[in-house]
Amino acid sequence: MKNPLLAPELRDYLESGNDEALTLFLDSGHPRVIADFLSALTPSEAWKILSVGDLSLAAEIFSEMDEWFQADIAETLSRQELAHLVTEMAHDDRVDLLGRIPENRRLRILSALAVAEREDIRKLSAYDEGSAGSVMTSDYATLSPELTAVEAIDKLRHEAPDKETIYYAYVLDGKRRLIGFVSLKDLILAPPHEKVEEIMNLGVISVRVSDDQEFAAREIQKYGLIALPVINGGDALVGIITHDDAIDIITKEHTEDLEKFMAIQGSHDAASYLRTPALTHFKNRVFWVVGLAATGLISGGILHHFEATLSSLMILALYMPMLADTGGNTGSQSATVVIRALALNEITAKDMLQVLWKELRIALMLATVLAAVAWFKVELLSGGTPLPGGFTLTQVGGAIVLALAIQVVTSTLVGALLPLGAARLKLDPAVVASPALTTVVDITGLLIYFTCARVILGV
Amino acid sequence: MKNPLLAPELRDYLESGNDEALTLFLDSGHPRVIADFLSALTPSEAWKILSVGDLSLAAEIFSEMDEWFQADIAETLSRQELAHLVTEMAHDDRVDLLGRIPENRRLRILSALAVAEREDIRKLSAYDEGSAGSVMTSDYATLSPELTAVEAIDKLRHEAPDKETIYYAYVLDGKRRLIGFVSLKDLILAPPHEKVEEIMNLGVISVRVSDDQEFAAREIQKYGLIALPVINGGDALVGIITHDDAIDIITKEHTEDLEKFMAIQGSHDAASYLRTPALTHFKNRVFWVVGLAATGLISGGILHHFEATLSSLMILALYMPMLADTGGNTGSQSATVVIRALALNEITAKDMLQVLWKELRIALMLATVLAAVAWFKVELLSGGTPLPGGFTLTQVGGAIVLALAIQVVTSTLVGALLPLGAARLKLDPAVVASPALTTVVDITGLLIYFTCARVILGV
Repeated sequence: MKNPLLAPELRDYLESGNDEALTLFLDSGHPRVIADFLSALTPSEAWKILSVGDLSLAAEIFSEMDEWFQADIAETLSRQELAHLVTEMAHDDRVDLLGRIPENRRLRILSALAVAEREDIRKLSAYDEGSAGSVMTSDYATLSPELTAVEAIDKLRHEAPDKETIYYAYVLDGKRRLIGFVSLKDLILAPPHEKVEEIMNLGVISVRVSDDQEFAAREIQKYGLIALPVINGGDALVGIITHDDAIDIITKEHTEDLEKFMAIQGSHDAASYLRTPALTHFKNRVFWVVGLAATGLISGGILHHFEATLSSLMILALYMPMLADTGGNTGSQSATVVIRALALNEITAKDMLQVLWKELRIALMLATVLAAVAWFKVELLSGGTPLPGGFTLTQVGGAIVLALAIQVVTSTLVGALLPLGAARLKLDPAVVASPALTTVVDITGLLIYFTCARVILGV
Repeated sequence: MKNPLLAPELRDYLESGNDEALTLFLDSGHPRVIADFLSALTPSEAWKILSVGDLSLAAEIFSEMDEWFQADIAETLSRQELAHLVTEMAHDDRVDLLGRIPENRRLRILSALAVAEREDIRKLSAYDEGSAGSVMTSDYATLSPELTAVEAIDKLRHEAPDKETIYYAYVLDGKRRLIGFVSLKDLILAPPHEKVEEIMNLGVISVRVSDDQEFAAREIQKYGLIALPVINGGDALVGIITHDDAIDIITKEHTEDLEKFMAIQGSHDAASYLRTPALTHFKNRVFWVVGLAATGLISGGILHHFEATLSSLMILALYMPMLADTGGNTGSQSATVVIRALALNEITAKDMLQVLWKELRIALMLATVLAAVAWFKVELLSGGTPLPGGFTLTQVGGAIVLALAIQVVTSTLVGALLPLGAARLKLDPAVVASPALTTVVDITGLLIYFTCARVILGV
């Protein structure tokens, strides 16, 4: 986010070579605040100011900038400058940055790095998109079990500048297997010469590199952790995911869930709304919309089948949209509530009967109210119109209202049932996109409508 | 969440009075894990086991239990037992617990507490629901500026067991005004005799008690904080909000946004899906559904107005649902994308022209594809039907397809425009509920449809 408030002053300082003022500025607040101020300048101006301070602060501020501004700055840097910057960045942030740089340039930068850094980047970039491994960082603090509390604090003090967090330190055995953890608070509270193995907490909460990133974020939420260790197939510690990354993952997943539910494809890694080309937006949306339009062939076919009924009793056509809309609305509501309850672990697929019983009662109440509204509507709009075939308004209105009530109950239950079914099949409940649900209840709605008309009116 | 895995063993230990095994169990893992095991027992069994260990651990485990299980346990306790437990709990958690206890009992418990505790609870419960004040806790660590690093660490060490976090400590002046903060990491890295005022970070990020809780959570996310200080009107520090609370707030707000967008009212504090009575679910949903059904009067009126057109060319009625569904789908898609982009600060209300230009291009692409699908549908379904009034299928199909294309463009733009308009009026963009949007584009859709029919076919 650009903050143009200080841009004129910063440009002044740059032109007059007032490095003292710039150094003070770089240290005057949270790196994110400084990053926002710098983002209002050109990439090369921002870099000139960053390079006035020390490199580790520059790397911290740089990491807080928007991804595209980072990439723009990276383009203005020499290979050596960029290699130095990358070396100072947090291990997860630099993997993200390098992933956004064109491949031939990336390879040249990598070759300018120390072997250990290169190897670390290679390892971290190797995990599947969306896995815990792909969002972890490798700059965590470790301790061996035989250190004393004092020695441990001393070790953490020396390593602190290079670590993402020193508030949790992980205790490893000779094979780098995770056997416990200590918090800095535990170490400070412990008698100075007590050993780490006596202080450490057993039963560490951890995830595997291959676990889903959302699962990892939910573990951080569930246990209120500052960092969550990530282990590989051999139980060796390979990374941590920190609390701030967990919030970002959860926000991103919420966006994707909402968009999935609204039948939009695509992921939310790279670009913001305005940066994404119209063609990509189009591609994300077209699949489902066309799919649903194609499925509309079924309701189209049903309508054609009952064309004679509609022709003989035109009034029925006038209330079709009401039936479709109401069914879509009530079905989407129950689907929304059930999908969220599943996502928040309030219910599981096993609670299906309980959920259906609750939704049935809700649906009957909704149906009663909506039927009354529909009756009022028929009286108001069609009260004066003479009806063909000797039908009374009460008869026709009765058929319409009955169909509406049945439709409300059906679509509420279908809306609850589809996500529960998806969960039982181990699918993401949000695949039951609201437009897809609307299409389904359109079809059931038409069948209910014409069946009611046939039974009550005999048409 | 109940975890029944250890229930038989725990009951055995209880019956045989094996307090040693129970003490080991209470300390064997994260309090949340222990809480889940205990939740599978009866409230009085769970409490018997909790009271074997020391009270502060019991309070920690108790706080991790589901709200209703906490309330169930509280009912089995004597006034004194509950007062002791409440004294040990985190300050924000105990306010939540007391808020769920019937008033006369709550008053009796409060009177059993020390004056300072009672006063703290009274203050914390006084803030408006949804404000930063209502979710903060008052057990934060403070330092005065003239302490040295060593003295500061010593103070934090002594206070640690009573504080929510000691990783951030807040520096206050004589009037309790927040003038800076130090992290435990800063203190450990500083020379032992350097003063807090030299070490501390200025430019503390803070929020006011009256700020929205979601704003506070977003600040924690934006700056990657472990805790965020909350100040009152006089700039005095009165509480902190911690990173784990931020995740819970964000999750809750996401749920409310999604439900708002699906036209469901209500908040998500108290109860889970199954615990909420059907009548409450009904009340949360009925308002909008009935409102939309009532608004449907407008589209009903339009339909009646064009009844003669429909009667003379029945085929038009058959494609009305397709038009309505497609408009609803494309409009909901653009609304979803724009609402999320606004929520994530990717765009603001000022970007309206840019957004509309992008959506226009997306809409034209979608319209082209969907028009082709619609044409195919008309050919397939109505190819054999003779048309009245000497119209050819090409003429009628042309009118339908043109209307569909215009409807796709209109509803995509309306879907983007409504949330942007809401944002410009400083309203929550999510008030543009998807069903409400569907109702709006139903109306525009019918007008477009009959206008196209009149212009092209002259009916």
